[in-house]
Amino acid sequence: MNRTRVLLTGFDPFHDDPVNAAWEVVQEVAASDLAGIDLHVQQIPTVFHTSLDVLAQAIRQVQPDVVLCLGQAGGRAAISIERIGVNLDDARIPDNAGQQPREVPIVAGGPAAYWSGLPVRDLVTRLREAGIPAEESWSAGHFVCNHVLYGLMHLLQAPEFQTQGVVGGFIHVPYLPEQAARHPNTPCLGRAEMVRALRLVLDALKR
Amino acid sequence: MNRTRVLLTGFDPFHDDPVNAAWEVVQEVAASDLAGIDLHVQQIPTVFHTSLDVLAQAIRQVQPDVVLCLGQAGGRAAISIERIGVNLDDARIPDNAGQQPREVPIVAGGPAAYWSGLPVRDLVTRLREAGIPAEESWSAGHFVCNHVLYGLMHLLQAPEFQTQGVVGGFIHVPYLPEQAARHPNTPCLGRAEMVRALRLVLDALKR
Amino acid sequence: MNRTRVLLTGFDPFHDDPVNAAWEVVQEVAASDLAGIDLHVQQIPTVFHTSLDVLAQAIRQVQPDVVLCLGQAGGRAAISIERIGVNLDDARIPDNAGQQPREVPIVAGGPAAYWSGLPVRDLVTRLREAGIPAEESWSAGHFVCNHVLYGLMHLLQAPEFQTQGVVGGFIHVPYLPEQAARHPNTPCLGRAEMVRALRLVLDALKR
Amino acid sequence: MNRTRVLLTGFDPFHDDPVNAAWEVVQEVAASDLAGIDLHVQQIPTVFHTSLDVLAQAIRQVQPDVVLCLGQAGGRAAISIERIGVNLDDARIPDNAGQQPREVPIVAGGPAAYWSGLPVRDLVTRLREAGIPAEESWSAGHFVCNHVLYGLMHLLQAPEFQTQGVVGGFIHVPYLPEQAARHPNTPCLGRAEMVRALRLVLDALKR
Repeated sequence: MNRTRVLLTGFDPFHDDPVNAAWEVVQEVAASDLAGIDLHVQQIPTVFHTSLDVLAQAIRQVQPDVVLCLGQAGGRAAISIERIGVNLDDARIPDNAGQQPREVPIVAGGPAAYWSGLPVRDLVTRLREAGIPAEESWSAGHFVCNHVLYGLMHLLQAPEFQTQGVVGGFIHVPYLPEQAARHPNTPCLGRAEMVRALRLVLDALKR
Repeated sequence: MNRTRVLLTGFDPFHDDPVNAAWEVVQEVAASDLAGIDLHVQQIPTVFHTSLDVLAQAIRQVQPDVVLCLGQAGGRAAISIERIGVNLDDARIPDNAGQQPREVPIVAGGPAAYWSGLPVRDLVTRLREAGIPAEESWSAGHFVCNHVLYGLMHLLQAPEFQTQGVVGGFIHVPYLPEQAARHPNTPCLGRAEMVRALRLVLDALKR
Repeated sequence: MNRTRVLLTGFDPFHDDPVNAAWEVVQEVAASDLAGIDLHVQQIPTVFHTSLDVLAQAIRQVQPDVVLCLGQAGGRAAISIERIGVNLDDARIPDNAGQQPREVPIVAGGPAAYWSGLPVRDLVTRLREAGIPAEESWSAGHFVCNHVLYGLMHLLQAPEFQTQGVVGGFIHVPYLPEQAARHPNTPCLGRAEMVRALRLVLDALKR
Repeated sequence: MNRTRVLLTGFDPFHDDPVNAAWEVVQEVAASDLAGIDLHVQQIPTVFHTSLDVLAQAIRQVQPDVVLCLGQAGGRAAISIERIGVNLDDARIPDNAGQQPREVPIVAGGPAAYWSGLPVRDLVTRLREAGIPAEESWSAGHFVCNHVLYGLMHLLQAPEFQTQGVVGGFIHVPYLPEQAARHPNTPCLGRAEMVRALRLVLDALKR
């Protein structure tokens, strides 16, 4: 039986945070066993455009059935499955290369937005039924996370990926408890719950 | 060497919640080993006045050095160490016996408030340093949690307890993840983090 | 000198609210004098698709230079200038005709999203400089407000409107104080401030 | 017929705010006519202890029936009628004299708290029925506002004030719109609504 090839990505830490919750979770899931899944992990720099170069390169190498990118959304209380990426970079803080684009399209002449390829509602339902706080999100923001979601879905428009039916999408995770401990009145989700959530999502995306 | 006698309490589930996060955590901590602590656990009914009768009875039996009461505060994002209990019951929902007092003093003629006996700021600092979201709280609300905090501190005014220096206080815990999964956009804290937090608090309260 | 023809719309009240803040503000602005603007006002039913029929009909009659649609966003704290409308209806409550579409495209085969035609950032800056809380918004939701924003921008893709450079967009307003008074812990904005905000926006959109 | 003598106070601006919403509202109400009320206004410095000296001096001069102190609570969305003042100063920012007490009692040996003398619930109901967002608050914080509330109620314990039945209390007001315009995602209340609220409160406190 065929295993589903999954390319799973997370970002490096950014701004003043020593860790990135998404990357922490990605690593922990990668170290575990996932029935029916051939998992490939890639760290992506929190840098406009370079992030997409790294992602495109990984996709060429891995030839995945599913590309799932994870990012950290400090301040959110639940695993949030993004619905849509929009064609605009607008950074309130510099990225890890010091770039801070304001109101700049990601792809000149590209469409305003692309829908995520994930079964958003179904994933939210599965996670909630498993006792994990989850929500669907209608905006992935306008920093590098949205940049990667839009860029990924733009890339997957290529005929080769459309033919193969490659699925792409983006999920935001809250702070880990140790991050929230430094940001008063900010929600978090435990490492154990995040890992369980990501494993459930991957299982749901198996072909 | 003397072990510190601790009476640890949690409430039974109330309103439409099948579990009470505080009681879940209390039970799990009770099942573990705590160096230097002689731990006694008591469930308290989420009922005005009956809760205090049960608490007083347990205090008489256990003769504790420390009385630590835990309650659930759905909607809060961190372990919150209460500073003060106030002399007023004002229930927006009925308690588990169907009582719903509105603007009624807990102790007729009692002082407006009692300070908690816990080292609030120190506990918050310890928890945060251990990577657990924690905050101090200046209001325990006006439902059964505040009722128990005020009633406990009132009880501990008795000369016998003052002489022995019995310490009392109240801590609110957020929802567990499985509870937040049913309440969209509500923060939670993982069971593992809550248990670790309570163990750290108990350790800090050792004589 | 030519006056700018503006079609200004607001919705009828919906759900359990006796008034709609957007329509209240639209009416009050319509009753005032606006230098250089030829203002036409249209109430739009809070009904999927019928709303767009009414809007299209008004556009044909008015032949406006600018189409500005206002909606109420209970819970938001500031005038919010929407950036983008997405091609999906997903109603958590029924519209005023009892319809409740779930995950249904607005325009079958239409693009995922359209950008608003408003100078979003400039409007936010102007309002803030005038002392009015304002923000840009990256999601107009997925009820009738987003439906009208997406439908409007889809309509304005027609060559005739593109040639004339007709500008369209959507603005959400918070509750009025009398609405927030019935929804505890919900922000509002005063009628006077909303009217002043809308007049400033209209002035900024003059040709 | 006797008019009710009211001493109404507000603070000077503090921290980085050029205005203080409470003082703005106090001034505007003072400039208007209030049937049956003999209104005396006093600005109070946002300074621990000096504030209470100024307040005590004004009380001696005015010999009021009612002492109503107003303060600004940036971030709150409604007029909030405080229930209780607690005997602790704990400042996260310096006051206007550069003092920053941490965990220091206001009155050494004083009771933990005093209830406000205002008919809190009744005032909230009246304001809401008049279409103004209002709430009761169980914590006035731990900066100069709480300091003044506690200090005022402590002062009013003196036999002369108890005999005369002098009523004292504290009300927090949200930011004005022009303040919220500089603090994104922060609620506000319009000047007109605040003035109307304060006039309604004063009317309700008439003897």
